[in-house]
Amino acid sequence: MKRVYNFAAGPAVLPLPILEKAGSEIADFNHTGQSVMELTHRGSDFKGIVEKAEKLLRELLKIPDDYAVLFLQGGGSLQFSMIPINLAGVEQGEAKKSALYVDSGVWAAKALDEAKKYVNVKIAASSKDKNYTYIPALPAGIAAPEDVYLHICLNNTIVGTRWNTLPDTGAGTPLVADASSCILSEPLDITRFGALYAGAQKNIGPAGCTVVIIRKELTEHAPSWTPLMLRYDIHTKDKSLFNTPPCWCIYIISLVLEWIRDLGGLPAIEKINKEKAALLYNAIDNSKIFCSPVVKEARSLMNVPFVVRPELAADKDKIEKKFLAEAATAGLVNLSGHRLVGGLRASIYNAMPLEGVGALADFIGKFAV
Amino acid sequence: MKRVYNFAAGPAVLPLPILEKAGSEIADFNHTGQSVMELTHRGSDFKGIVEKAEKLLRELLKIPDDYAVLFLQGGGSLQFSMIPINLAGVEQGEAKKSALYVDSGVWAAKALDEAKKYVNVKIAASSKDKNYTYIPALPAGIAAPEDVYLHICLNNTIVGTRWNTLPDTGAGTPLVADASSCILSEPLDITRFGALYAGAQKNIGPAGCTVVIIRKELTEHAPSWTPLMLRYDIHTKDKSLFNTPPCWCIYIISLVLEWIRDLGGLPAIEKINKEKAALLYNAIDNSKIFCSPVVKEARSLMNVPFVVRPELAADKDKIEKKFLAEAATAGLVNLSGHRLVGGLRASIYNAMPLEGVGALADFIGKFAV
Repeated sequence: MKRVYNFAAGPAVLPLPILEKAGSEIADFNHTGQSVMELTHRGSDFKGIVEKAEKLLRELLKIPDDYAVLFLQGGGSLQFSMIPINLAGVEQGEAKKSALYVDSGVWAAKALDEAKKYVNVKIAASSKDKNYTYIPALPAGIAAPEDVYLHICLNNTIVGTRWNTLPDTGAGTPLVADASSCILSEPLDITRFGALYAGAQKNIGPAGCTVVIIRKELTEHAPSWTPLMLRYDIHTKDKSLFNTPPCWCIYIISLVLEWIRDLGGLPAIEKINKEKAALLYNAIDNSKIFCSPVVKEARSLMNVPFVVRPELAADKDKIEKKFLAEAATAGLVNLSGHRLVGGLRASIYNAMPLEGVGALADFIGKFAV
Repeated sequence: MKRVYNFAAGPAVLPLPILEKAGSEIADFNHTGQSVMELTHRGSDFKGIVEKAEKLLRELLKIPDDYAVLFLQGGGSLQFSMIPINLAGVEQGEAKKSALYVDSGVWAAKALDEAKKYVNVKIAASSKDKNYTYIPALPAGIAAPEDVYLHICLNNTIVGTRWNTLPDTGAGTPLVADASSCILSEPLDITRFGALYAGAQKNIGPAGCTVVIIRKELTEHAPSWTPLMLRYDIHTKDKSLFNTPPCWCIYIISLVLEWIRDLGGLPAIEKINKEKAALLYNAIDNSKIFCSPVVKEARSLMNVPFVVRPELAADKDKIEKKFLAEAATAGLVNLSGHRLVGGLRASIYNAMPLEGVGALADFIGKFAV
């Protein structure tokens, strides 16, 4: 069996022991004589899996009881619609309400574009002026009582920035966050958020499931025209089993959560992630060929873009191509930057071992043009 | 390794060779050194999988080029919203258009209930008067020019009935069908339909993916308020890769489609399915304890409900309980009827081998109270 170090931004690397366990029981889960993919979702065997996943997620993130934990479909992109539809609660013919969005990256911008269909979007702050290479400061008292929520992207996957200090939205305006690329990478105070969502395919499991953590009171305002599958209240009431859920994804998620718990939970994961990030940023900062486009105080722990140094810009394409080819030969794959921004990027999620980051850091150090 | 005969209605049995293949390459797909769950969806390895799945589906069902083939999320339940929203194309504030629905079962009724949010639903015909135990006849010329489409459920999973002859909707009104529980069970003339959808978890693959086959011209009417992820035109344009798709599900689907092709395609599958259904209905019809609640001419090839005979009604619960317990001991599982209708039911999808149906037929024949 061949294995590589996979630095893809998502779908991304999964822990090898989980893949091996899933493979070993793929045709006979827990002596049922059935694959997890064959288990009826109304039976006790599958209910045990989804309940285990929810329980572990609640324990790891210390999620209070007044928050629902949902395993949905449609990725972050469907949340871009569900958040404004459900939270604004505007019936057809009624006037739109306002919501605040921080424009801090490509996905943050996609979220606010989609929200414009359902709410009056107010841009609370933007870092677009410098290609999203920093997290913009929020003016004090930005949230007015009429603003339904303030939306941020907690970690910007494409540009590699993160919020280190959460914005204070005051008592009346809940904070809503896309946490797709940083959830479970370190401890997080859930009580600071009204809602939080994350596509599973980065730090939680395989593509095809979206985790939503939402204060239950915020689920109760869906307007009557909301498509049933887009109503948080229904998924909350039915505990993610309103219709057939993405069973296999939830199963792998339950294994990933167990793996995190067994490693020592989020404090232990944070320690390893900080060590990994320091190793990689150090290699980039010391490189004579590459540099980081991101201001130091906003650097993501999970997604690390790097670009050819300005003085070598004339050879940029050639250098990138050589780097990608030689890295792949060395078993370091998926290091291209996102197609919208170019350059290079290493995503170093929880499942990327320290050894993989070490190998990449060494490779960057030794790479010559 | 233990295996049982799993008669669940969905998620349902998958072919064992596929589970074994998926298990054997779960940590290293096609010498990539990565699991299919880890492959970036923008890379050539995953694109090869989704393209293969589409190509095989087009070949098996002889899908013409003017139809899109989409691999989406959200199950049949999300299609209950997407069909009326996209096909009616009504902007907020505009008058609703009308659509015809046939009320032939539990899921057909759910589809029409959801559609009421977006279109004026006209019930073209109903079999609710006799607990959906037959397929209602459609009055000739039922579809008026103003009806946007006529919706049927091609095979009613819970009550076990099927359409043997498709309704003629005339030139102006496309036929739309929920084919979740019968797709790929026999040849089907796609050109009779404007759109066809199916949750994968019965006859196509694991839960978490929905296959949509739709005439491209019907994808072009989504109103401006449609959530992005609910727009057929976007998924058509991006070939199911608008956002991260349910990669693992599509991979298993590609293996299932390959398995069907290698068995000889849909004509061969139909022959086996008819043999399996005849064996089981024969056992039920000859039973002194059970009988079929469904009129003979509408009996499903895929979902076979059976109930305790009326003369034994006093002992119904006791008999069902004994049957389920003894069947499970014999390795025949998930034979309960749907929670909404009770009784017993065997779903005998493509992946259920003839031997499994034979074992159940024998068991029914020998079962004594």
